[in-house]
Amino acid sequence: MHTPDGLFGGVFGRGAVDTSDRAWLQAMLDTEAALARALERAGLADPGAGEAVTAAARAGDFDPAELGRQAALTGNPVPALVRELSRRLPAGPAAAVHRGATSQDIIDTAAMLLARRAFAVISADLAASAAAAADLAAAHRDTVMIGRTLLQQAVPVTFGLVAAGWLTGLDEARAALDRVAAGRLAVQFGGAAGTLAPLGSAGPEVAALLAAELGLAAPVLPWHTQRLRVTEIGAACAGAAGVLGKIARDVTLLAQSEVAEVQEGGGAGRGGSSAMPHKRNPVGSIAVLGCTKQVPGLLATLVAAAEQEHQRAAGAWHAEWEPLAGLLRLTGSAASWAADLLGGLEPDPARMRHNLAAARGFPLAENVAALLAPAMGRIAAHDLLAAASARAAASGATLREALAEPPEADRIAAAGITAGQLDAALDPARYLGAAGEFVSAALAAHASLIAG
Amino acid sequence: MHTPDGLFGGVFGRGAVDTSDRAWLQAMLDTEAALARALERAGLADPGAGEAVTAAARAGDFDPAELGRQAALTGNPVPALVRELSRRLPAGPAAAVHRGATSQDIIDTAAMLLARRAFAVISADLAASAAAAADLAAAHRDTVMIGRTLLQQAVPVTFGLVAAGWLTGLDEARAALDRVAAGRLAVQFGGAAGTLAPLGSAGPEVAALLAAELGLAAPVLPWHTQRLRVTEIGAACAGAAGVLGKIARDVTLLAQSEVAEVQEGGGAGRGGSSAMPHKRNPVGSIAVLGCTKQVPGLLATLVAAAEQEHQRAAGAWHAEWEPLAGLLRLTGSAASWAADLLGGLEPDPARMRHNLAAARGFPLAENVAALLAPAMGRIAAHDLLAAASARAAASGATLREALAEPPEADRIAAAGITAGQLDAALDPARYLGAAGEFVSAALAAHASLIAG
Amino acid sequence: MHTPDGLFGGVFGRGAVDTSDRAWLQAMLDTEAALARALERAGLADPGAGEAVTAAARAGDFDPAELGRQAALTGNPVPALVRELSRRLPAGPAAAVHRGATSQDIIDTAAMLLARRAFAVISADLAASAAAAADLAAAHRDTVMIGRTLLQQAVPVTFGLVAAGWLTGLDEARAALDRVAAGRLAVQFGGAAGTLAPLGSAGPEVAALLAAELGLAAPVLPWHTQRLRVTEIGAACAGAAGVLGKIARDVTLLAQSEVAEVQEGGGAGRGGSSAMPHKRNPVGSIAVLGCTKQVPGLLATLVAAAEQEHQRAAGAWHAEWEPLAGLLRLTGSAASWAADLLGGLEPDPARMRHNLAAARGFPLAENVAALLAPAMGRIAAHDLLAAASARAAASGATLREALAEPPEADRIAAAGITAGQLDAALDPARYLGAAGEFVSAALAAHASLIAG
Amino acid sequence: MHTPDGLFGGVFGRGAVDTSDRAWLQAMLDTEAALARALERAGLADPGAGEAVTAAARAGDFDPAELGRQAALTGNPVPALVRELSRRLPAGPAAAVHRGATSQDIIDTAAMLLARRAFAVISADLAASAAAAADLAAAHRDTVMIGRTLLQQAVPVTFGLVAAGWLTGLDEARAALDRVAAGRLAVQFGGAAGTLAPLGSAGPEVAALLAAELGLAAPVLPWHTQRLRVTEIGAACAGAAGVLGKIARDVTLLAQSEVAEVQEGGGAGRGGSSAMPHKRNPVGSIAVLGCTKQVPGLLATLVAAAEQEHQRAAGAWHAEWEPLAGLLRLTGSAASWAADLLGGLEPDPARMRHNLAAARGFPLAENVAALLAPAMGRIAAHDLLAAASARAAASGATLREALAEPPEADRIAAAGITAGQLDAALDPARYLGAAGEFVSAALAAHASLIAG
Repeated sequence: MHTPDGLFGGVFGRGAVDTSDRAWLQAMLDTEAALARALERAGLADPGAGEAVTAAARAGDFDPAELGRQAALTGNPVPALVRELSRRLPAGPAAAVHRGATSQDIIDTAAMLLARRAFAVISADLAASAAAAADLAAAHRDTVMIGRTLLQQAVPVTFGLVAAGWLTGLDEARAALDRVAAGRLAVQFGGAAGTLAPLGSAGPEVAALLAAELGLAAPVLPWHTQRLRVTEIGAACAGAAGVLGKIARDVTLLAQSEVAEVQEGGGAGRGGSSAMPHKRNPVGSIAVLGCTKQVPGLLATLVAAAEQEHQRAAGAWHAEWEPLAGLLRLTGSAASWAADLLGGLEPDPARMRHNLAAARGFPLAENVAALLAPAMGRIAAHDLLAAASARAAASGATLREALAEPPEADRIAAAGITAGQLDAALDPARYLGAAGEFVSAALAAHASLIAG
Repeated sequence: MHTPDGLFGGVFGRGAVDTSDRAWLQAMLDTEAALARALERAGLADPGAGEAVTAAARAGDFDPAELGRQAALTGNPVPALVRELSRRLPAGPAAAVHRGATSQDIIDTAAMLLARRAFAVISADLAASAAAAADLAAAHRDTVMIGRTLLQQAVPVTFGLVAAGWLTGLDEARAALDRVAAGRLAVQFGGAAGTLAPLGSAGPEVAALLAAELGLAAPVLPWHTQRLRVTEIGAACAGAAGVLGKIARDVTLLAQSEVAEVQEGGGAGRGGSSAMPHKRNPVGSIAVLGCTKQVPGLLATLVAAAEQEHQRAAGAWHAEWEPLAGLLRLTGSAASWAADLLGGLEPDPARMRHNLAAARGFPLAENVAALLAPAMGRIAAHDLLAAASARAAASGATLREALAEPPEADRIAAAGITAGQLDAALDPARYLGAAGEFVSAALAAHASLIAG
Repeated sequence: MHTPDGLFGGVFGRGAVDTSDRAWLQAMLDTEAALARALERAGLADPGAGEAVTAAARAGDFDPAELGRQAALTGNPVPALVRELSRRLPAGPAAAVHRGATSQDIIDTAAMLLARRAFAVISADLAASAAAAADLAAAHRDTVMIGRTLLQQAVPVTFGLVAAGWLTGLDEARAALDRVAAGRLAVQFGGAAGTLAPLGSAGPEVAALLAAELGLAAPVLPWHTQRLRVTEIGAACAGAAGVLGKIARDVTLLAQSEVAEVQEGGGAGRGGSSAMPHKRNPVGSIAVLGCTKQVPGLLATLVAAAEQEHQRAAGAWHAEWEPLAGLLRLTGSAASWAADLLGGLEPDPARMRHNLAAARGFPLAENVAALLAPAMGRIAAHDLLAAASARAAASGATLREALAEPPEADRIAAAGITAGQLDAALDPARYLGAAGEFVSAALAAHASLIAG
Repeated sequence: MHTPDGLFGGVFGRGAVDTSDRAWLQAMLDTEAALARALERAGLADPGAGEAVTAAARAGDFDPAELGRQAALTGNPVPALVRELSRRLPAGPAAAVHRGATSQDIIDTAAMLLARRAFAVISADLAASAAAAADLAAAHRDTVMIGRTLLQQAVPVTFGLVAAGWLTGLDEARAALDRVAAGRLAVQFGGAAGTLAPLGSAGPEVAALLAAELGLAAPVLPWHTQRLRVTEIGAACAGAAGVLGKIARDVTLLAQSEVAEVQEGGGAGRGGSSAMPHKRNPVGSIAVLGCTKQVPGLLATLVAAAEQEHQRAAGAWHAEWEPLAGLLRLTGSAASWAADLLGGLEPDPARMRHNLAAARGFPLAENVAALLAPAMGRIAAHDLLAAASARAAASGATLREALAEPPEADRIAAAGITAGQLDAALDPARYLGAAGEFVSAALAAHASLIAG
């Protein structure tokens, strides 16, 4: 299990995604070991070579810093790694090390292994987040709150609908991620220029065996400079990050002191401020945003790097390693934070009612207008509401109070609208349209996704 | 049919993708018209209202500039459009215009319509490009050329393998694009805050009818601030752009004066330089790159904009419109250029042979080493080749000539290697490994994709 | 004067920055005309050639769409423009058209002219914004409000301090922009590959005259593929956009229904919602954000495009045109919106006091702790406040009330702290530290900038 | 002195820029120590407190991983660091730790210290690169080579002109970097919300003393959410990266096997390929590109993050830390690689002549046309050259040979042009225009920059 570390690791490296040097190194060694086993199965390496290489391929036995220094000679750490690995083996197994492969085969396949491991973690954290969002949606299906558009109070919604929106986003992002994990993580094995010439006619067989050993897909042909798989990994991360960032943005806004409709679960003093004891900072959503806001730029780097020359790119390939690892780590950290955040989120229905009441009925104006329109015409109804709203806004009265004053009261009465009808039209709980139905639909879709 | 126009339209707006103001406007009007028809079908609008609105919803009858000016009052052009559209209709149909909808419903759905139309065009141009790449791969399955890694000559490949790589990229990018087109382009209809409250209990039915009218998917719930669909559209474009950019980069490099292994088909004087009559600029691939290099930044904007507040975002939503249209247009232009480029590409097998011959056998050194290794050991074989290569490189001799001199010649003879074996090992056509097999696999995958 | 147009022009093309096809075309023609005049002054063109070319160089006489179509043959519209321009002239002046120049000379110099004109506009709008911010800072130097960190209420600040922060940002961004305008907008004139060979030894003289004619800087040498000037233009825009986006973000947050401490000036019904008459949408700040959020991606494109090959880039150069124009237009639109927004902004000091009072004294807890610490020790003081705050938070009491209850009241009294001291420590207006001084410093720096 | 480390450190962390956890931690501690000294100087801390805190502020004594874990509670590592630091001090000095400061003060100021140290390193490496480019420009002022536009051979240039272009770019990028270093790296000190309230009226004095202690600029007011300084740091890095990437791109292209006009200096076996002994990979320029291609996306992140809320941002601030460090590290690594690369670059004038000769005179066609034009008219001259060029291109003849054949030969003779004139017009060394003058101008500008 990965322990996030480093000075900023608690924020940007939360959870179980591991893109440390150690993880990279082990993934490269796993690839070399699997290649040795594949070669042995294909009859191209001595019996036992696969096992011997596998036994030697332990990241902890190698020094990343020294390999890093050697990398300056060739532009990547694989040649030094191959030398070191071979040096630790008898001649027979040593002859199987890296046979037929080029450095890019090892790094690209290792990246796919990192991505596979990361995607499993991220998917699980998205699923946990979705489960928490589903609980919130179900529990608050009928919890009325004010909807806000353009950061202004608009019309009533439910907190269940808000959570259902989060849920659907999480489920759709996870589905996209799982699709990439299932179908697009492929072994890379092509040798110097994609022909596997040193293996003669055995190349494709070894490639297939290597894919089988590693549990990765076998591509139609080597993809050294066809980087769609890499950008798809990045895009799947970015999709998830976008969904997580939206949730975190909502939480920071709903948790504002003046709104206070949700609060992050604290636990162990999280979010407290020693200087300001009244504060409860939304640390989880801030951390999510600290991660997700880094994602668009990293994705852009991967997409730009897809323009790769000939049979191996001079720089564009190298420029992928850090952003790809960054995307996995940051999306993973955001997903881990979000699972925690949503699992502990504390909505405050009373405060939601309070905020709605404080809106003095204005959010229902369009509903009152709709009540009046059949009797007095759309334009007249609209104008009546506008006038009453303006007066109420100026005086501090509620819309209901303003509508009870002349001249509006008279015109409403003349239109045959009763006080009871007015009251009903001004009841937020009766102006929720399909909110409940949408929540149910989101929960049903979620249940069906889980059922697989 | 769209006519690309504007001063830079010939470069950045080639082909049939249309994201002009007129196209946007028509898509918005199509949405309003479909809504009126849906309302009528649901019994919420007068009989004939749908037809009447549809008849009035012709973009050519509206003035985009005036709507744009009005947009400054509300932040988007829909309210003015709705006013203008309603003004042209009798009261009955006018009452059905925009009923239940919010501006974002119209713009988001219109964007989906633009995307659907654009994706159909892009997919067709990617298919045409793939067909051309398949022809090149098949025709040049055995056309030997030098493979290049890190912009240095490496080992032999075939031009068929190069084209097969392009083909696979094009097919995979198209599959991803088609998947988004088929499953992720959805109607947006939620009203002010996603509850469709003004429609009472009829909201979901109207939403479903609207989706049916437009041929778009019906989402689980309104997605005003869940923007995964938008980023997926952008990512599909970026995937295609990445593949197209790689092809264009290869063509510019292969078309270099000093390499000259391919030339763009000219036609109508394209790429000529009046000042420099010997030049034949690769205008098609330059235009592709001029388009694709703009894509990563635009995608980053969409991904960053996915962090949207509450029930409607204050700015992040608006920031999507131009980059989304830009991604469709630029990917479309690149695909159109690529179809033309690949359809007319002129490979020069003689020049490929010439360049390979000019490499004086060095690219086959690893093959000769492999021939010698069983007899003299891997290290010794490697050292022998390194020495001979170095001498040949210094003297201008071929590797074959250097190997025929002492001391290497003696050691080779001592190892029992014949001149015939040496010649065979130095024949590029015999050192292509699985190149042909990979080409066949790519063509088979392509055929199967086409067969559907 | 430029009229922003198009369906989205009201939002993304406000103000006087003009990057339309017409503006591009005129800038290209201005460059060709200035070149003809420069050649004439250098004795390399017939007398009168400059005047004749200048007279013919009117954008309105050319068809951008036709030039755009011709651009598909060469990758840019200049060759067709040169043909068209020459065709309209007698042989003598025609011979001076484009002499010594390459297409890139014309487009790059035209881009510099567009940038110069745009920077003048943007600088003026930033200055107007700064003037408005300075007025707000001066007027509200002592208007107390709650400061907010991490979207939580923290400690008191003044609205003057907020406005002073905006002011300083605007002034610094403008200074950066003006520095680029003054020093880095240079003529490009190098001919096919930067040697000006067709002009023999007269090249540098013509280049200098061309710079003088256009009022642009004369570079040390042609900069066809040294693009630092272009990225600096983009970075200056991005700096301004960042400052503007921050202001707009603050306004949207302060204008939230629940906060309501500022409101955008409406005028002509801006920001109203016909369906929701109580709403006053912050359209200006939304428009600013709609513009500024597009900037990072466009800047990234320019920076990535700086990697240009040899003496002219195959694609990277072309990829600059649209994002450069976009950066100028969007920054200009944001600056124009901001000038309007800040000029009309309506702060509500009463509401600020109300929100501060609603915080029940918690934001002053650290001040009370500081009052108590000398007498009872830092830790004990902190713990006392934490306990009182927690109790007040739970009960709905104010901090003052909680401190008047046992056991805190007794311990405070025991520490020799009087009620008057407590009240003073809980007075926000007395806990503003250097806020006023900082406002004065910002105003002084502003005055000094204006004084030049 | 920083030792780059980690598996990829040899590529992406070359040189002396240090953005490791240790470096961050030391910069934070340096800030805390300087604050204690400033407080003491202002009479707000016990005598000796500054010295005591400074003595305890050694990064090596703290555990970054533990601080990172604690950071998860608050969103940043400063509170835990302050606790740890205070714990190691007697009460008097401990009371001075962090007094008046907020976490952001420490991290922002630390970032400025990191940037200052990094900028000094980068500037030195840019200066070393520029010195090497100046040497190349001077040494090859008259080394003729073919200029290439759009990756096609165009007209002659000199290698000196190419190097002079690099030189000017390097000098201009360094000047921009130095300007930011000199004027825009400022201390951040504002306390919780920018008022420094806990320090009463002493805040500005302490801020000024802190700036003096650290050698950073004192800002007009705290800039917690005014991030122009941060984006300017990023933009200065990006400017340098753009220049470095262009140089590296040129080197990779000139070093192509088929061009071979430059070679990277190897030393210690760099760039060799054991499998392909003939290869000499341009590792230095590949590493530069691997770094610089990551820069645009990171800059975009910083620019997007400039939109910060109120008095402290919820996420956008946090999102700056990694990309800012990344920009410093990657620009530093690229600059270090470039200094090495340019210092060892081996141009091959003979190969340049060879490639020029292989162009068979075509690049001089425009010069011949200019020779003929006065006698036979521009159009006719152009057509004659086009015909001769086309025939030569088809037959493999040189342009000179084609011009010596009928009908061109006759028409040239009829125009009174002699063979000697033709030969002169076809001499690349006589068709260099202002190349030499531009080289001299660049060298003079460089000398003047160095002279200061």
